[in-house]
Amino acid sequence: MASSSSDAKAAAIQAEAFPDGTTDFVPLRGKKYDLRKHIADQPITAANWYKHVNWLNTTFIIFVPLVGLISSYWIPMRTPTAIFAVAYYYFAGLGITAGYHRLWAHTSYKAALPLKIFLAAAGAAAVEGSARWWSRDHRAHHRYTDTEKDPYSVRKGLLYSHIGWMVMKQNPKRIGRTDITDLNEDPVVVWQHRHYLKSVITMALIVPTAFCGLMFNDWLGGFVYAGILRIFFIQQATFCVNSLAHWLGDQPFDDRNSPRDHVITAFVTLGEGYHNFHHEFPSDFRNAIEWWQYDPTKWFIWTMKQLGLAYDLKKFPHNEIEKGRLQQLQKKLDQKRSTLDWGIPLENLPVVSWDDFVSESKNGKAWVAIAGVIHDVGNFIADHPGGKGLISAAVGKDATAIFNGGVYDHSNAAHNLLSTMRVGVLRGGCEVEIWKRAQSENKDVATVND
Amino acid sequence: MASSSSDAKAAAIQAEAFPDGTTDFVPLRGKKYDLRKHIADQPITAANWYKHVNWLNTTFIIFVPLVGLISSYWIPMRTPTAIFAVAYYYFAGLGITAGYHRLWAHTSYKAALPLKIFLAAAGAAAVEGSARWWSRDHRAHHRYTDTEKDPYSVRKGLLYSHIGWMVMKQNPKRIGRTDITDLNEDPVVVWQHRHYLKSVITMALIVPTAFCGLMFNDWLGGFVYAGILRIFFIQQATFCVNSLAHWLGDQPFDDRNSPRDHVITAFVTLGEGYHNFHHEFPSDFRNAIEWWQYDPTKWFIWTMKQLGLAYDLKKFPHNEIEKGRLQQLQKKLDQKRSTLDWGIPLENLPVVSWDDFVSESKNGKAWVAIAGVIHDVGNFIADHPGGKGLISAAVGKDATAIFNGGVYDHSNAAHNLLSTMRVGVLRGGCEVEIWKRAQSENKDVATVND
Ligand code: HEM
Ligand code: HEM
Ligand SMILES: [Fe+2]
Ligand SMILES: [Fe+2]
Ligand SMILES: [Fe+2]
Ligand SMILES: [Fe+2]
Repeated sequence: MASSSSDAKAAAIQAEAFPDGTTDFVPLRGKKYDLRKHIADQPITAANWYKHVNWLNTTFIIFVPLVGLISSYWIPMRTPTAIFAVAYYYFAGLGITAGYHRLWAHTSYKAALPLKIFLAAAGAAAVEGSARWWSRDHRAHHRYTDTEKDPYSVRKGLLYSHIGWMVMKQNPKRIGRTDITDLNEDPVVVWQHRHYLKSVITMALIVPTAFCGLMFNDWLGGFVYAGILRIFFIQQATFCVNSLAHWLGDQPFDDRNSPRDHVITAFVTLGEGYHNFHHEFPSDFRNAIEWWQYDPTKWFIWTMKQLGLAYDLKKFPHNEIEKGRLQQLQKKLDQKRSTLDWGIPLENLPVVSWDDFVSESKNGKAWVAIAGVIHDVGNFIADHPGGKGLISAAVGKDATAIFNGGVYDHSNAAHNLLSTMRVGVLRGGCEVEIWKRAQSENKDVATVND
Repeated sequence: MASSSSDAKAAAIQAEAFPDGTTDFVPLRGKKYDLRKHIADQPITAANWYKHVNWLNTTFIIFVPLVGLISSYWIPMRTPTAIFAVAYYYFAGLGITAGYHRLWAHTSYKAALPLKIFLAAAGAAAVEGSARWWSRDHRAHHRYTDTEKDPYSVRKGLLYSHIGWMVMKQNPKRIGRTDITDLNEDPVVVWQHRHYLKSVITMALIVPTAFCGLMFNDWLGGFVYAGILRIFFIQQATFCVNSLAHWLGDQPFDDRNSPRDHVITAFVTLGEGYHNFHHEFPSDFRNAIEWWQYDPTKWFIWTMKQLGLAYDLKKFPHNEIEKGRLQQLQKKLDQKRSTLDWGIPLENLPVVSWDDFVSESKNGKAWVAIAGVIHDVGNFIADHPGGKGLISAAVGKDATAIFNGGVYDHSNAAHNLLSTMRVGVLRGGCEVEIWKRAQSENKDVATVND
């Protein structure tokens, strides 16, 4: 009953949109979905799950490696091919870590043109997207770490941060915006982005296959081992930077966000495992700052510098790094401090006159005054490591001097223990008392200030 | 020419004292020595060195073991004797650690009579003096650690603290006095002290010789291996508590004195190697507080408790131990803090008006105001990880809000870095300014207070 051809066209489109033919679709149960919403923002159901899957990525990350794995059963692995596959694995890995990550995403050093071309080619061999796309997401990851705008936030689960964010469709609007004008000005980055598919097929499959074919006459082995399965391993390894490095290890520099340092992650990821450091000092060309830590990417960049191919290697000032480490330690210490019992605060103790102190001590209280504070040592006399005699003799007296070296210079532990025995403050006894009185006189003010 | 017989006697004595026959001895060179001084207080010279040596101790600690070692060349070591010697080594070791040290010197637990007798016998087998003598010195060691009154102060050298203090004569008056009334009231301690020589010969030599003789018909092996050489090893091991434990390892609880924690010392000394803890909490029956640390002496005491032979095992409160650990960490952190550069203190910065700030920024200065402080970001614009654009746009402006989350919530590292770029404080800009003015107005007062 369409009155015009344009109406008919609209109806046809709508019919296509709703395969059951309804033109005025209203869900019978549940919320009414805004159909303009991105699929990623709709709940996954038995009916729509396949629409959530990014089938292209899934093919490259899961299906192809699976086929490679199964077919490897029939294809013998020859030693030279295996050795080449491992070497090519490191080559592709460095393309991601030294190229995509430290050079382009973080501009932590500058590279001469030949090195850039080398890194762009190596990065393509890892099949993880173009350097431009990779760096844009990675900058968003740093700028919006652990938030909704983080493309691979570990807060959504370890599996999500590892692989889920690629296997499932994402709403591109959700991911935080970042500035990539510098990358748009880099001809190598732009070229690789424009010719991405050609680059990948050449570097990830043709080159390793041809190399093993021509050198060892092992075309099939080259394709499966140095190509497909090698891609699978390098992908999984670098994905660990987003999952494992945000989940396993220590946080020596900052514990507000998820990044962590761990040697295992470093071994898996060519040195990217000191990730707490890296998130705090992303512009540093190093991830590991100690010489004994494993960071082959750093060693590679350093070697390139010796060859004149890399320059302007950025280091965050040592003083600032140590300040960060110290502040984090201080923070942990303060947390620990608040879990311990430090004795009754002085301002909560009753003020006792000297005469009362003496008379109470005569009437059976085992009170000892030290530094203006009265302590009940009754339960401790029998346990006193310095003997019953000395401590009993101090009851009813000011033992400040003898406690602090006159007879014995007590340890820090003894001072701590003493603070747990507080029962009062001496009136006019010393500074503390004056302060104490000032406190109580200003009681109203203090309450208001709170 | 002696006029009377008593004069003659005095002269004879004096002649004996000065073998060269002079009666009015005055040294020709150097200081005039007070002859009533103890030998230990006189310098060692080629002429008097042998008077410095405590030959009795040297015989038992060095010569006898040496003779044992040499004779062992001709005496075959039989397996059962060797096994017994090791077992007897642990028996004698526990006599020292669980008996002399933790029970008697520190009264860190109470023992039933049979256990006391067992420990006194075992301690005698180690040939390290009576429990009474050992504990008196040990209490002085704790009370006067590292001072002149410490009988085995490591400040006099590692070798001195290990063995020198026994091999060389000591002035008994030098060693700090301690209260041992409790030991004088302990019949087992008193008996062992009175019958020390008998006890040692029986337990250290007769028992092991007779055991190996009667059981394995190895009288000579028993004497040399389970007797003499076993004594040598247990002596050297326990001496390590005075040397190694004051020299090797960490100081988690207090670093004012020398005691240190190290697992190697613990292995050598049946668990006495957590010596920093022990000096801080000497009344604790444990030396190691973690279950995974090696402290067989603690395990032995615990087992005796299960058998009803030990009771009142003292533990320092966990809260107090953790307080000590925390304070030591805090101390280290504060030391570290003072070695770092925290930027120019605010009170040393010039006060700049808002108008001056703006006009200076227009005239080429790359000044950014954040939280009332003016920063010169000139050298940093090109390096800014967030790009040149954003930071340049903030020049001549108050960037407090955008720096703290408005555009990007900068890391702790960025805040630290910022503090190194301080050049001035804004007049009336914020609290800091008011405080700053108060500071400078009270300049004279402040100087006087210093
Ligand atoms: C009033 C509360 C007191 C407390 C909580 C206390 C605590 C302690 C503690 C924990 C020790 C073990 C060693 C150390 O940690 O330094 C100790 C040892 C000692 N105390 Fe006290 N003490 C008190 C009072 C006194 C007084 C008043 C005297 C002397 C007049 C005294 C004399 C000694 C001596 C001489 C030792 C050394 C014991 C040794 O190592 O041989 N103490 N005390
Ligand atoms: C004034 C002195 C400034 C200093 C010392 C500074 C320092 C830094 C540092 C060290 C980083 C690296 C990441 C981090 O540590 O958090 C960073 C990143 C960033 N800064 Fe600044 N910044 C300054 C000013 C500004 C201003 C005024 C803006 C914005 C208006 C800004 C925007 C950003 C952004 C957006 C990033 C994120 C870069 C990324 O991870 O992609 N910064 N800044
Ligand atoms: Fe990360
Ligand atoms: Fe990064
Ligand atoms: Fe000691
Ligand atoms: Fe001790």
